[in-house]
Amino acid sequence: MTQSVRQFAVTRPLYSEDLFAFQHEKIYRQQKTPLDHVKAYFTCNPKRAKSAALSLLPVIGWVRMYRIKEWLLSDIVSGVSTGLVAVLQGLAFSLLASLPPGYGLYTAFFPVIVYFFLGTSRHISVGAFPVLSLMLGAVVTQLVPDDGPPANITGFEGLTQDQQRVTVAASITFLMGVFQLAMGLLQVGFIVMYLSDTLVSGFTTAAAVHILVSQLKFVLGLVIPGHSGPLSITFAIEKIFVHIRESNIIDLVISVIIMVVVYFVKEFNERYKAKLPVPIPIEIIMTIVACGVSYGFNFKENYDVDVVGAMGTGYEAPMVPDLEVIQLTAMEAFPMAIVGFAVAFSVAKVYAIKHDYVIEGNQELIAFGASNIFGATFRSFAASTALSRTAVQESTGGKTQIAGLLSAMVAMVVTMAIGFLLEPLPKCVLGALVIVNLKGMLKQFGEVPDLWRKDKPDCVVWVVACASSIVLGLDLGLAVGLAVELLTVVFRTQFPRCSVLANIKGTEIYRDRKDYLCIYEPEGVKIFRIPSPIFFANIEFFREKLVESVGFNPLQVLRKRNKALRKIRKLLQQGELQITEKGLLHTGSTPIEELEDEGNTDDLDQPANFQDLPVQVNWNAELPGHIRVPKIDVHSIILDFSAVSFLDISALKGLRVALKEFIRVDVEVYIVACDSHIFKKLHSCKFFDSEIKTSIFFLTLHDAVLHILEKHPTLPEATSTCGKALSHGHHGIHRNGGCSLRSRESAFLN
Amino acid sequence: MTQSVRQFAVTRPLYSEDLFAFQHEKIYRQQKTPLDHVKAYFTCNPKRAKSAALSLLPVIGWVRMYRIKEWLLSDIVSGVSTGLVAVLQGLAFSLLASLPPGYGLYTAFFPVIVYFFLGTSRHISVGAFPVLSLMLGAVVTQLVPDDGPPANITGFEGLTQDQQRVTVAASITFLMGVFQLAMGLLQVGFIVMYLSDTLVSGFTTAAAVHILVSQLKFVLGLVIPGHSGPLSITFAIEKIFVHIRESNIIDLVISVIIMVVVYFVKEFNERYKAKLPVPIPIEIIMTIVACGVSYGFNFKENYDVDVVGAMGTGYEAPMVPDLEVIQLTAMEAFPMAIVGFAVAFSVAKVYAIKHDYVIEGNQELIAFGASNIFGATFRSFAASTALSRTAVQESTGGKTQIAGLLSAMVAMVVTMAIGFLLEPLPKCVLGALVIVNLKGMLKQFGEVPDLWRKDKPDCVVWVVACASSIVLGLDLGLAVGLAVELLTVVFRTQFPRCSVLANIKGTEIYRDRKDYLCIYEPEGVKIFRIPSPIFFANIEFFREKLVESVGFNPLQVLRKRNKALRKIRKLLQQGELQITEKGLLHTGSTPIEELEDEGNTDDLDQPANFQDLPVQVNWNAELPGHIRVPKIDVHSIILDFSAVSFLDISALKGLRVALKEFIRVDVEVYIVACDSHIFKKLHSCKFFDSEIKTSIFFLTLHDAVLHILEKHPTLPEATSTCGKALSHGHHGIHRNGGCSLRSRESAFLN
Repeated sequence: MTQSVRQFAVTRPLYSEDLFAFQHEKIYRQQKTPLDHVKAYFTCNPKRAKSAALSLLPVIGWVRMYRIKEWLLSDIVSGVSTGLVAVLQGLAFSLLASLPPGYGLYTAFFPVIVYFFLGTSRHISVGAFPVLSLMLGAVVTQLVPDDGPPANITGFEGLTQDQQRVTVAASITFLMGVFQLAMGLLQVGFIVMYLSDTLVSGFTTAAAVHILVSQLKFVLGLVIPGHSGPLSITFAIEKIFVHIRESNIIDLVISVIIMVVVYFVKEFNERYKAKLPVPIPIEIIMTIVACGVSYGFNFKENYDVDVVGAMGTGYEAPMVPDLEVIQLTAMEAFPMAIVGFAVAFSVAKVYAIKHDYVIEGNQELIAFGASNIFGATFRSFAASTALSRTAVQESTGGKTQIAGLLSAMVAMVVTMAIGFLLEPLPKCVLGALVIVNLKGMLKQFGEVPDLWRKDKPDCVVWVVACASSIVLGLDLGLAVGLAVELLTVVFRTQFPRCSVLANIKGTEIYRDRKDYLCIYEPEGVKIFRIPSPIFFANIEFFREKLVESVGFNPLQVLRKRNKALRKIRKLLQQGELQITEKGLLHTGSTPIEELEDEGNTDDLDQPANFQDLPVQVNWNAELPGHIRVPKIDVHSIILDFSAVSFLDISALKGLRVALKEFIRVDVEVYIVACDSHIFKKLHSCKFFDSEIKTSIFFLTLHDAVLHILEKHPTLPEATSTCGKALSHGHHGIHRNGGCSLRSRESAFLN
Repeated sequence: MTQSVRQFAVTRPLYSEDLFAFQHEKIYRQQKTPLDHVKAYFTCNPKRAKSAALSLLPVIGWVRMYRIKEWLLSDIVSGVSTGLVAVLQGLAFSLLASLPPGYGLYTAFFPVIVYFFLGTSRHISVGAFPVLSLMLGAVVTQLVPDDGPPANITGFEGLTQDQQRVTVAASITFLMGVFQLAMGLLQVGFIVMYLSDTLVSGFTTAAAVHILVSQLKFVLGLVIPGHSGPLSITFAIEKIFVHIRESNIIDLVISVIIMVVVYFVKEFNERYKAKLPVPIPIEIIMTIVACGVSYGFNFKENYDVDVVGAMGTGYEAPMVPDLEVIQLTAMEAFPMAIVGFAVAFSVAKVYAIKHDYVIEGNQELIAFGASNIFGATFRSFAASTALSRTAVQESTGGKTQIAGLLSAMVAMVVTMAIGFLLEPLPKCVLGALVIVNLKGMLKQFGEVPDLWRKDKPDCVVWVVACASSIVLGLDLGLAVGLAVELLTVVFRTQFPRCSVLANIKGTEIYRDRKDYLCIYEPEGVKIFRIPSPIFFANIEFFREKLVESVGFNPLQVLRKRNKALRKIRKLLQQGELQITEKGLLHTGSTPIEELEDEGNTDDLDQPANFQDLPVQVNWNAELPGHIRVPKIDVHSIILDFSAVSFLDISALKGLRVALKEFIRVDVEVYIVACDSHIFKKLHSCKFFDSEIKTSIFFLTLHDAVLHILEKHPTLPEATSTCGKALSHGHHGIHRNGGCSLRSRESAFLN
């Protein structure tokens, strides 16, 4: 490691914050108040109105620059492919939602149309999303269980079970849309930032487990009532094992064949991605084959296989959401609104970055909100996006939401005209397809050991999010995961590593004194680094660490000094102490120890008051008459604030008390590298008074140390952990010609 | 402001982190793993066993040093005074808990005895606490409402309403004790740190409002069923107003007299605190007077005044808590356990600091847990401490828990022998005394404007904690307040003020360039300060701000460059470009614009690949054939990490992507002032690779700037916002003889 050694050389005045502020005047900048922001937000002029209108209807923006020649063909190809996938996924995911399969096709149609006008993403395929469908299904089976009576809701009268379920699903979807729309209008889309990658990974892994369990009954051809609520997964697994001998062997065989074939063809697609013009659409092929075989052998009648069945043709009349259901499901609809949006937004962002356009979070919330409200009116269920479907839309060449619109048309054609072709499709085929697609999500379990090695708190978040989502259900699990995630942020700053710093000789650099052999700690000076923000949860921790590192408790010392003062006063009154030139001399004979102090203890915490005494007392010298107070070998403390990014009120109070305690036992406290915003805040919160002055603030650690060294020049031999330095005494800091400390009684240098 | 100007002078090698680590070897320190901590915790030897036993039974410690002569008399005086207050408060607070008054006396007896042995505080008076009693009362009236049937619990059969309520109260208290004991044994007492002063203030203010409303019915002599659950307070107020004309005028008159008298005598006590030997015990006097008057005029019979009534003599047999009740109330018992302990601990801490002894949080948890479990077995209800009662115990001279034990004896005597004397006491007296003591808690409303001025997030926490506790009830409200409080910590770091720094000329100091007139920003260098920890919620924010401050999006630039490269390759293949000495020359005639790129977009994000090209392309020069790519005027970015106290995995990934994007468009990125723990973590998380090297880390901002200035010496005229500097050109940084930059091809110093 031989390279040119370059020099770092600085000569400048020694700066306290006060001096720096005096020499370098700040430009006055008008700070915007929250009111200003609100005003600015509601200011209206034609230009703003136009841009607001445009941002509310993004379709205007991109349709104007649509390149028909280049894009239309791609969009058509993509739209038809995506449409086929959307139909298949619509059917499959409606099973997750415990709804009749036909309504999955609704979800592939209605929300897409609204999103076409309002959405800012050009590539995502709006529609059913498995995790969301499952969350919906949990509420649906809770209100309308398979066995037992449905919830006591007036609107349910005269409806079949399936109709009741559709009513519930549509009502929750409506409420979810309202939540999303409201969040979009209130511009609070940023809250999805709280769903970190780790949390989402844990959550979706749990969702995959739930999905797997929920589809097992279709794969095995069992009739098992759905459960919901905490621990439902254990009941479901238990039921499956109890009834496993009743499995329909045909269902199982079909499922296994489909899973194996689809799995290997997908692997093949993945491996030869570069060589294949398009991936083999194995799921669609298998579905068509399964439909044909099921129809040919009449699986339904002959082997008692559960099939999709009649879906009805055409759409039903719009409905009004049921208010009673909405009241009952508000707590469940909110996490659904968040999850639905968060997934769609993160998928949309991936493609927006890839294709270099901008998506707007709050507009996306509005778009999804409106889509879900509109969809719910027509009985479609919770819409977001599915990663796999969006990948199809983009990879087959989709350029804009024209492709999305076309996929909706495909879903419409299936609903209106050719739905009957899907009637013989066994449900186990759908279940098998859902399960085989869980591979990616379940693979996330493999991330855990790596995460543990990299970052323990993040790993805890993953495990808690996943475990609680599996055990407590997805909505409650997400809340628990989120809470733990937010706690980790607090926790990371709550018990930070505090360190006592010392000087790297010949430089202005300070490092942890335990880390280096050759390091110089000026005698009587403690440099304490606070390595994190200070707030209610760690202010006490810092105070304890500070007291520990200086080696004495200032309050105890102050009290002992005040008690000693009392005794001295008493002895002076009794004439047993005489004032000599050398200080106080004990001439009396009363044993001091018997002067037990029994007075008021309140003023023991006040600064030592010498006013009525003829002399000052030097606490570090021998006191007369065997009065003992602890000796203090620290005269200055420097707090390094460079990593303190904020202070709250509790921290401010605690800091103030701590500083005063030290100042009252004549220890000087300095604060260095304080952020200017924090400095301003200390001013506005009346932090300063006659004891704590702004002159304790210095620009850098080295400024403060130089200041202290000058103020306490009669230092005894400086101590250092480095042998060499010891012989140089307190000149150590001047060695190498590095640091110099010259005092000049002159005007400022410019 | 004339003072001596002192110099700050440093000359040292220019340090990158690599060079510094090479020159200053770190001492290897063994880091303790979590396993080591666990091992250390469970290590057992005779000394540890003894100290563990002593810390589990603190009574052994203080009884041995009990000074009988000095302390016993004080303890007796204090014990009797406290006992009288405890009896009165026990009666009053049992009304808050919706229990028969006699059980309040139980609470003043049983828990105190256990605390005597296990507690570490010498001054707190264990027993009923109004807020806790109210929280208990909410659950009690929920399970056993005044009107309507009680909850469907087997254990309730054959019990009167009061007995049912006592069963409920004892069972919850038992569970609360179990929670406290468990927390103490698990050593998680630190969680009370999360209850910040602000949160507790808002919460207790809300509790005062609840208490006020709950006591109004006694003051007015109304019979109104209690409510519980969210919004119960509105129902209660509504009921009171509906029935207000049925008020018992005698109750009202007694209450008003008592409130006025007690209020003014207390003011008097406060004002003449210094002169009075002891404060006038006005509450006890008024109670005795009220008892007498009520007995004399037979208020109960003559004026239908609700009195305390027969309390029974002696104690009841111990009971087993009801498991069904425990199952139903687990969610409510947990916040009670937290609140009860938090209040007692904070009160105990105040007196521990005042009298200079140590209290131990986890041992306190164990003590309160055991007290509550023991108390619940004897039908006493939730115990903590009351600030006012503890103040009496301490101010009347209590030195140790001997005083507490004596106060328990007083309560026992009342229960066993003279309880009948209290029978004629009107309940409205107790209500009036409770209300008049709310003054302090309600006064906290006055803190709000001050809090808003000082710190907006803290004020939001206060208001949310208070409002939600009033509206949703104390348990749910506390949870909401806690969640908001934790969110503020995240929020404070989520949208920090980022700033672009520049050099204060003649120094090594860098400040926000917008704040100072005379400030020097080296051309082509952006110094970006990250003023807070980086984690999942703000990494995107920082990336956006960074892109905004450098003025271009590196990914877009990279893609445009790669597209331009493709075109150049195409033109070269077509022979329309020739390589001249001056670079590439366009000789062809094809209009470049028509070469629309339709290829694969995946490799556009890779670093520009010049391998198959005969020349390097200078992106900031004119390109041949009117190919246009954005010009970049930034060659180096410095990220100031001095305030980054932690990085999580999401931040690490995001930072890595951001750095790579810049590096791939040939912008050098430097990171300075990085904490050594973060540096270590980056290493362990495999942050570094062929693109991101450790050599980008520098010790200080100035080191990095000097390095950059040397690396890019042919800088054009430096820009600055200061007129003077402009004329000095890029020598600006050398002015004042301040900073110098000398390169020496030599070995290291030393």
